[in-house]
Amino acid sequence: MNKNVQTFLGCDAAYEEASIVLFGAPFDGTTSFRPGTRFGPSAMRNESFGIETYSPYCDLSLEDMDICDTGDLELPFGDTEAALRLIEGRTAAILQDGKRPVMLGGEHLVTLGALRAIVPETPDVQILHLDAHTDLREHYLGVSLSHASVIRRAWELVGDGHIHQFGIRSGERAEFAFADGHTRMHRFTLDGWAETLDALIGKPVYFTLDLDVLDPSVFPGTGTPEAGGVSFQELLGAILQLHRLNLIGCDIVELSPHYDQSGASTAVACKLTREILLQMKGA
Amino acid sequence: MNKNVQTFLGCDAAYEEASIVLFGAPFDGTTSFRPGTRFGPSAMRNESFGIETYSPYCDLSLEDMDICDTGDLELPFGDTEAALRLIEGRTAAILQDGKRPVMLGGEHLVTLGALRAIVPETPDVQILHLDAHTDLREHYLGVSLSHASVIRRAWELVGDGHIHQFGIRSGERAEFAFADGHTRMHRFTLDGWAETLDALIGKPVYFTLDLDVLDPSVFPGTGTPEAGGVSFQELLGAILQLHRLNLIGCDIVELSPHYDQSGASTAVACKLTREILLQMKGA
Amino acid sequence: MNKNVQTFLGCDAAYEEASIVLFGAPFDGTTSFRPGTRFGPSAMRNESFGIETYSPYCDLSLEDMDICDTGDLELPFGDTEAALRLIEGRTAAILQDGKRPVMLGGEHLVTLGALRAIVPETPDVQILHLDAHTDLREHYLGVSLSHASVIRRAWELVGDGHIHQFGIRSGERAEFAFADGHTRMHRFTLDGWAETLDALIGKPVYFTLDLDVLDPSVFPGTGTPEAGGVSFQELLGAILQLHRLNLIGCDIVELSPHYDQSGASTAVACKLTREILLQMKGA
Amino acid sequence: MNKNVQTFLGCDAAYEEASIVLFGAPFDGTTSFRPGTRFGPSAMRNESFGIETYSPYCDLSLEDMDICDTGDLELPFGDTEAALRLIEGRTAAILQDGKRPVMLGGEHLVTLGALRAIVPETPDVQILHLDAHTDLREHYLGVSLSHASVIRRAWELVGDGHIHQFGIRSGERAEFAFADGHTRMHRFTLDGWAETLDALIGKPVYFTLDLDVLDPSVFPGTGTPEAGGVSFQELLGAILQLHRLNLIGCDIVELSPHYDQSGASTAVACKLTREILLQMKGA
Amino acid sequence: MNKNVQTFLGCDAAYEEASIVLFGAPFDGTTSFRPGTRFGPSAMRNESFGIETYSPYCDLSLEDMDICDTGDLELPFGDTEAALRLIEGRTAAILQDGKRPVMLGGEHLVTLGALRAIVPETPDVQILHLDAHTDLREHYLGVSLSHASVIRRAWELVGDGHIHQFGIRSGERAEFAFADGHTRMHRFTLDGWAETLDALIGKPVYFTLDLDVLDPSVFPGTGTPEAGGVSFQELLGAILQLHRLNLIGCDIVELSPHYDQSGASTAVACKLTREILLQMKGA
Amino acid sequence: MNKNVQTFLGCDAAYEEASIVLFGAPFDGTTSFRPGTRFGPSAMRNESFGIETYSPYCDLSLEDMDICDTGDLELPFGDTEAALRLIEGRTAAILQDGKRPVMLGGEHLVTLGALRAIVPETPDVQILHLDAHTDLREHYLGVSLSHASVIRRAWELVGDGHIHQFGIRSGERAEFAFADGHTRMHRFTLDGWAETLDALIGKPVYFTLDLDVLDPSVFPGTGTPEAGGVSFQELLGAILQLHRLNLIGCDIVELSPHYDQSGASTAVACKLTREILLQMKGA
Repeated sequence: MNKNVQTFLGCDAAYEEASIVLFGAPFDGTTSFRPGTRFGPSAMRNESFGIETYSPYCDLSLEDMDICDTGDLELPFGDTEAALRLIEGRTAAILQDGKRPVMLGGEHLVTLGALRAIVPETPDVQILHLDAHTDLREHYLGVSLSHASVIRRAWELVGDGHIHQFGIRSGERAEFAFADGHTRMHRFTLDGWAETLDALIGKPVYFTLDLDVLDPSVFPGTGTPEAGGVSFQELLGAILQLHRLNLIGCDIVELSPHYDQSGASTAVACKLTREILLQMKGA
Repeated sequence: MNKNVQTFLGCDAAYEEASIVLFGAPFDGTTSFRPGTRFGPSAMRNESFGIETYSPYCDLSLEDMDICDTGDLELPFGDTEAALRLIEGRTAAILQDGKRPVMLGGEHLVTLGALRAIVPETPDVQILHLDAHTDLREHYLGVSLSHASVIRRAWELVGDGHIHQFGIRSGERAEFAFADGHTRMHRFTLDGWAETLDALIGKPVYFTLDLDVLDPSVFPGTGTPEAGGVSFQELLGAILQLHRLNLIGCDIVELSPHYDQSGASTAVACKLTREILLQMKGA
Repeated sequence: MNKNVQTFLGCDAAYEEASIVLFGAPFDGTTSFRPGTRFGPSAMRNESFGIETYSPYCDLSLEDMDICDTGDLELPFGDTEAALRLIEGRTAAILQDGKRPVMLGGEHLVTLGALRAIVPETPDVQILHLDAHTDLREHYLGVSLSHASVIRRAWELVGDGHIHQFGIRSGERAEFAFADGHTRMHRFTLDGWAETLDALIGKPVYFTLDLDVLDPSVFPGTGTPEAGGVSFQELLGAILQLHRLNLIGCDIVELSPHYDQSGASTAVACKLTREILLQMKGA
Repeated sequence: MNKNVQTFLGCDAAYEEASIVLFGAPFDGTTSFRPGTRFGPSAMRNESFGIETYSPYCDLSLEDMDICDTGDLELPFGDTEAALRLIEGRTAAILQDGKRPVMLGGEHLVTLGALRAIVPETPDVQILHLDAHTDLREHYLGVSLSHASVIRRAWELVGDGHIHQFGIRSGERAEFAFADGHTRMHRFTLDGWAETLDALIGKPVYFTLDLDVLDPSVFPGTGTPEAGGVSFQELLGAILQLHRLNLIGCDIVELSPHYDQSGASTAVACKLTREILLQMKGA
Repeated sequence: MNKNVQTFLGCDAAYEEASIVLFGAPFDGTTSFRPGTRFGPSAMRNESFGIETYSPYCDLSLEDMDICDTGDLELPFGDTEAALRLIEGRTAAILQDGKRPVMLGGEHLVTLGALRAIVPETPDVQILHLDAHTDLREHYLGVSLSHASVIRRAWELVGDGHIHQFGIRSGERAEFAFADGHTRMHRFTLDGWAETLDALIGKPVYFTLDLDVLDPSVFPGTGTPEAGGVSFQELLGAILQLHRLNLIGCDIVELSPHYDQSGASTAVACKLTREILLQMKGA
Repeated sequence: MNKNVQTFLGCDAAYEEASIVLFGAPFDGTTSFRPGTRFGPSAMRNESFGIETYSPYCDLSLEDMDICDTGDLELPFGDTEAALRLIEGRTAAILQDGKRPVMLGGEHLVTLGALRAIVPETPDVQILHLDAHTDLREHYLGVSLSHASVIRRAWELVGDGHIHQFGIRSGERAEFAFADGHTRMHRFTLDGWAETLDALIGKPVYFTLDLDVLDPSVFPGTGTPEAGGVSFQELLGAILQLHRLNLIGCDIVELSPHYDQSGASTAVACKLTREILLQMKGA
């Protein structure tokens, strides 16, 4: 009899033996509309046992992998910069140990913490970004560290042409104009996905999945539901191609589980996380 | 510091300068199954700030328009006729001031109040009707003023051939038979939409959108969810053609926000209302 | 004035005059993840009055049929075998009276109770099975009578080649391997439905519909939502072909109404049950 | 096997043999704030099986009584007067058959329907009224038939000094002034209960229990929660004295079950209804 | 027809004529456990129309007062110091105009913003503090501006002996020790209230009501429910004595309305706010 | 960085060093009315961090103790006897290691598993039982291993006069009659608690707390809410005397967290568990 260990489904390797390290970043401190993504990682751990470790889509199982779930970071609320530093530190430590990080958000701003650790090590990293929103604001309510500005901050780190956006269907006019000059934005759908992946083969890629890219019918459990998103089948189809890439890290963000008391949104997030992890197997 | 003014997103013109006037008709007094559409307009105002004023679909923004939101009518419960008179009076006043009304329901019966003001002024008005239900009952539980009879009452005002129904998938056998002789009903889908719009070009059109035309997966927040509806993309595509018409008034009805605690239904209603308003820009 | 009689919409024939007998099996005793299907049958009765007896899809009405709803069995919790015996007994009695049973679950294990009564009478019965899950485990947590094993137990009754599975997208690797040798499994979709029905014409068929075959966007009200399911239109289209078969019994299982407080899942279950009953009209 | 009969716990006598007749009046058509009491009676029937037929408080059981539950009236929404006529008719029929009516609301206005049948037969009836609100408005939003006016309407039927109000803690200043002249109002608490009962012994009494007399901590499941109410123990203690009276009819109103998803409010309503019924045993 | 103005019940005076100014501080950026108090002020405005303007407890009405509700401040999330500056600015402006501020939270930290404006003007202000928690931490998760530290920060402004705490029942051992030396803490109950008020007569008093001082049975709609609190009657009784004091400002904080979907918590907050406002009438 | 360990607040001792061992028994397989207590232990772990380790009631802290939380047993559903054997085994192992067990339910039947391990070792154990229900049925729906029979089964193990029941307010007439002859039942309240404790001093005592002994206003999160229970203060007062006893084991059962979405019930359960653990300190 030991102390109670709780992990995401099938991610029970010891840290030392793991090649992939999962951790939660339960932060929603800049969420302006409806908070709650802080509960995302723990909900995913609890509910992940409603699905199987085996995927009939790619005929692989989490049981064949060596993933360690180190639990959630303890992040302070009310001090955004401090929270980002903690995320950066954890990501850097994982990289230094020769492992790949997979982060469960939390709001989308947590991605910035991870990128601050990744970009210095891999300056030519390509960012593959799925989202309903551009996230390209210069400021939001006077604040520069915001979920609505995270991709703008990421662009400041990686520069023009390194960010590939899909599914975007909401933003200010100025954000769309910014994208025209600086990112590769695919509006509304995932059209162009295969071609983008072709172009990214062999390059280091960070994959950031804002789950609100899904239509709210599929994924209502998020702070800012935006109608007109992609279907589960479309997103799954895109993910099932990721094994072609050299993924150096991933995050899955913006699950706010309490807004969908049916649990379906959390189940969607768990299943997609399983498929993403399985796509990282061969990398 | 002023008193607290609350409007639907971007609808903050002064009444005098407005060309379009939004108002709420928070009435659900004849709802036979599950009440709650009375909470629709205020929920839409509160939640509309989760979306943007700018639409990437049509490259227009509510900020470029002059819309006044005059808030909700105060309607008595338990006296249906009195409630309809108040809606009729408000609609007539808006028309008299040379503005166009956009009403947020409430149950579908509120449409009758608006039409009672519109038809005397524009007897040849064409009614464009999206709904899951025929709403063509002669009576419902012995009552003639009912959400289930509103299009039948409308027909008594405008006569044969002036009502164009889309998405209908529920009703009594007798209602479908009535439609065969008196309305132009398109069952189950939006097939024929473009052709209908072609035929309506140049004519005065009133657009009444019962949101339960959407599939309950997209829009569960309604009193009588009826499976098998249209998708958000299909409905959005149809709405994006409305600028071709001479819209003299609109309503968006049957959001019952409490039945969808994720807020996704309210977000859908807000986004569609934004797009409808933007389609009225050039008219 | 009589005592309060409550039935599923339009199923108010007297038992003696009925050719079809509906009953509820409110059992969820082996549910390992999230219980609540015990509330399914009563929720369906209550909410069925939100839809019509008439179907515009097949132009038939429940009012033209003679169906008796005998209410729910009183099943003990904590004694699975006893519960199955009660279901078997009720099913056998209905068959003996020359009527056809339609059972509302409850978890999927209740199907085993019905099959124990049916198979001895009709050993060559074909089982048409729609589900997200294989339900083919030999044991589940050491228990052989489990919702996760029900089709395995059914196979023990009917043997190879008599079970036709559609929409399956979750299970252990071993379950999929078992299916390869012993059932006719169609993964992920309903592809092959028409061909299967062609082959089953004239044979006795038992139809078991685990509603989680639907995508959770359509049907979140279930214990184990599994993303990637079929759409309502796809399932409805499949059901509308069932009149071609000789259906000797049916069940509709795994509605857990409390997990979808919008009521949309229950409305979906009610509408599909209506269509299934109408398909049994001519048989 | 018979058709499905559903009654309130232990109220399964045949109508002919019953001395007490229970029925539901699922009407909330004048509710101005939050509707939903229409779901009260059916929720009480469903949930009543969570309590026992036996009461350890008075050592009596519903099994020793002969009560028939005739189910819910089918009441039209949108026509208040018609709904009241149906309630009046049912109450009159029960009285004419020499039985005593117990009505489950619904909003408080339903009491007026019952009193319209009772007062002509028993003009000197005394009304025992527990409530958070005075319900003494002359009009409410221009409507005279309203939940907020029901006791004013009752006063028009029975006159000064026949209405005994307890627990009242909300109303307009004018309503409290009216009470001073016309009813016997006990503010805030049940103080004076025993004395009032002493004075009513031997007289015909109608007992109307608006459940919002309870504190919202005990009974949140109501449309207009008003803090500062009586405790369950206080109300139970008062009810346990009712056997001293000649109760000719009762109602229990204003349960709006969906507002308390824990079910505790419905359980409270069921237990109090059981105790009220048991108090009527010896009368 | 004007634009839609929304205020707390009966608080519709023009700013210039008002002697009391209500405003919302919808901030929950340091909430460590369960966020959502940002929704408090708007919920209170919406739901306040479920109660009356008239109080039978003190025979006063909000209609007899001149209170202006200026709506919610727009506060940035993710920058705590900026949010506090905005609250401080609004409070200072109200004071400068010779009016008294009443603030609706938000989390308890917002009180610090108000005190930063008040203390420089009134250095000898006495703070009357009702709460479940000590709120006396030096730091919380490394952050000094935190809901858990707000009274500690207030103490830094006003010094020993100026803070009077009641109802406290949760904190670290060190916090209770700190209170022994620096504040006047009354544990668990409101015992000593009348004596404290006697001692404060004539002095300037700021009243800060953390609604979680109430027992969670009365007030579950808060982020950190702490069992064992005071009853509504006890709290109401205490408030009804406040007219004896010279109240120079108040706040009511920590309503998190979504956690109590019955609406009872919001109704409690509204009723207490009404009574507090009425107590300020004569001051 | 280690794997994710999750324990009840402050219960993070290693098993070897622990004198008290906490474990969860997430079983609700015989629950006849509303299931969900299986989610109790994990909800308590998650939510326990909303309270403090320090108790101002007894001036003790969990940090001063050595308690190990070994997590939840994995219990099969559908095989009650197997589940009880697993609970018995775990309890026996803890006792054999010289530690004291504290079990978190789950439904009340889990107590039987613990007692089957305890009674053989300590045949003269006294059972201190708080509950709303007698739990003394011989059978329930034909099943002898049921939550409604657990104290009857316990009586079969320990015999007359060893069971001390408090707060009981619901049961069949026969159960109350049985109690008269065989247990020491205190109806409705905790009256007699101090005297019972006096009599039990020095004897081995097992304490089983069915949380539904609390009034549903305090604890709505349970499967069978039964109005008229004790207050939190009354129960806390009773628990604060337990340190006088020789407690050899405890359980806290019947939290069904999903039925109280405010989280207040879970918070109550956590706080009471903290106090019970602290009372075991000196023993």
